[in-house]
Amino acid sequence: MREQMAALARRTQDQVSEAIEAIDGGKCREDSWEREGGGGGRTRVLQGGSVFEKAGVGVSVVHGTLNEAASRSMRANRKLPAGELSFYAAGVSMVLHPHNPMAPTMHANFRYFEVNNGEAWWFGGGADLTPSYLFEEDARHFHAAYKATCDRHDSTFYPKFKAWCDEYFFIAHRGERRGVGGIFFDDLDDRPSDELFAFVEESAATIVPAYFPILSARKDMPFTGAHKEWQQVRRGRYVEFNLVYDRGTTFGLRTNARIESVLMSLPLTARWEYDHQISAESEEYRLLSVLREPRAWA
Amino acid sequence: MREQMAALARRTQDQVSEAIEAIDGGKCREDSWEREGGGGGRTRVLQGGSVFEKAGVGVSVVHGTLNEAASRSMRANRKLPAGELSFYAAGVSMVLHPHNPMAPTMHANFRYFEVNNGEAWWFGGGADLTPSYLFEEDARHFHAAYKATCDRHDSTFYPKFKAWCDEYFFIAHRGERRGVGGIFFDDLDDRPSDELFAFVEESAATIVPAYFPILSARKDMPFTGAHKEWQQVRRGRYVEFNLVYDRGTTFGLRTNARIESVLMSLPLTARWEYDHQISAESEEYRLLSVLREPRAWA
Repeated sequence: MREQMAALARRTQDQVSEAIEAIDGGKCREDSWEREGGGGGRTRVLQGGSVFEKAGVGVSVVHGTLNEAASRSMRANRKLPAGELSFYAAGVSMVLHPHNPMAPTMHANFRYFEVNNGEAWWFGGGADLTPSYLFEEDARHFHAAYKATCDRHDSTFYPKFKAWCDEYFFIAHRGERRGVGGIFFDDLDDRPSDELFAFVEESAATIVPAYFPILSARKDMPFTGAHKEWQQVRRGRYVEFNLVYDRGTTFGLRTNARIESVLMSLPLTARWEYDHQISAESEEYRLLSVLREPRAWA
Repeated sequence: MREQMAALARRTQDQVSEAIEAIDGGKCREDSWEREGGGGGRTRVLQGGSVFEKAGVGVSVVHGTLNEAASRSMRANRKLPAGELSFYAAGVSMVLHPHNPMAPTMHANFRYFEVNNGEAWWFGGGADLTPSYLFEEDARHFHAAYKATCDRHDSTFYPKFKAWCDEYFFIAHRGERRGVGGIFFDDLDDRPSDELFAFVEESAATIVPAYFPILSARKDMPFTGAHKEWQQVRRGRYVEFNLVYDRGTTFGLRTNARIESVLMSLPLTARWEYDHQISAESEEYRLLSVLREPRAWA
């Protein structure tokens, strides 16, 4: 499973970075890094392109020993022996921020985690869409793609993982979600690992067909300075979610993780206006309504 | 003391907002708010001015009952009875972000806290400078102003509060401080409250002479797009500190505090480039060196 997941992570990075380069015309910059305790990663980023403000796809295959705090938090959820735990983690993670405020940001992440050489293991991941302006057909397309993938594996997956996504990407201090969601799952270990891997593999393969048709439809739409400003305000909320709530980010900031990989998800630019107000009946308000009360999209 | 501190907070807001308007030419927008549990505040913000990107000064005078979590954290440091605690807090808080990348950001905050009608009370606060480009004479001027104020009250204050400031404004995941510091203190209750109030009063009166001469000297300096970009990268670090580490901000996000007041400190705009590199011997590197290893300035 270790090799299968590492290969899937690299394959997914290839697929998505090819799609990024094809639609943008620019080239990703690739860099590799090594982790002191074991393993490393490969990052591809396209920044300041013609379509993307910033698009990053990172592969990470790391192993070693969990420190005391991390071991404790692992044991909280599972039956594991006392003392330090060894771990192995392989995954792919990406955030794509386009320039055009009509084109949504997309985030996806799929990972496999193993403790003490398989004494415990699980899959986690998901994919979600963050528009600045709401096009209902985009939300429906994205959710329908992931519902179809989920349904091919277990009909309980989509309703469960859609609700989990809405719950996870909640910016509590704003009373709103980061975006229109998608799917989110963690600690998945309730059936043979090859069955779960097949689901994760297909979920990863769904990224390109779920997102890029939306991006194609929106990337050249006309927009005003006011649209761009609202996008920048929404980028600020993205930063707030990632720095304050996102488990991967906050865990990465507290440990010795490679900081550039942890914060690759942040947008190139963001904006915080004091007491920013939007008028009722506006397009901005229409987005906020679905961020405040998530809707069924598929 | 309650009335004295509330009056000082309002007086300081007047002094600083007058200085903001005088140098900028624009007008602050004022708004008042009420806290459901008791008290309220008054905020003045100048956004998109000729000198300031965003400058906000807020007064807050609130009272009520601390919830279970807050009561517990108060009891951790002090001898206080079990059960819910009543509190009173009065303070003034400000962050001034100028446009010009040669002009530093300034933050200051002074507050008085009381638990159970005076069973415990303390002062907290400080003032610190965050340049994007290092002008040593600016750091020396700011520190000298606060050292003089400290020394008039207790010769141990400045060395203690300068070191505390360097320790507090540490962005651990970057291995650097937010800026060139100033003073920072908390839980100050080791002498009669009127003596401490006199120190806090003079510290608040030091804001204008410590900061505005620097701003006057820098606000019209020529700069390039590259200077502006570096300022925006530094603004990103400011956001990282405030959202991840700042006690007031993280506490405000977890409680029912008024979110616009909590996040007033964030810059209007910020930037996150993937793996941003600066060359050795550059002006940017010169700043980073003092953020990595704080220096004595007074």
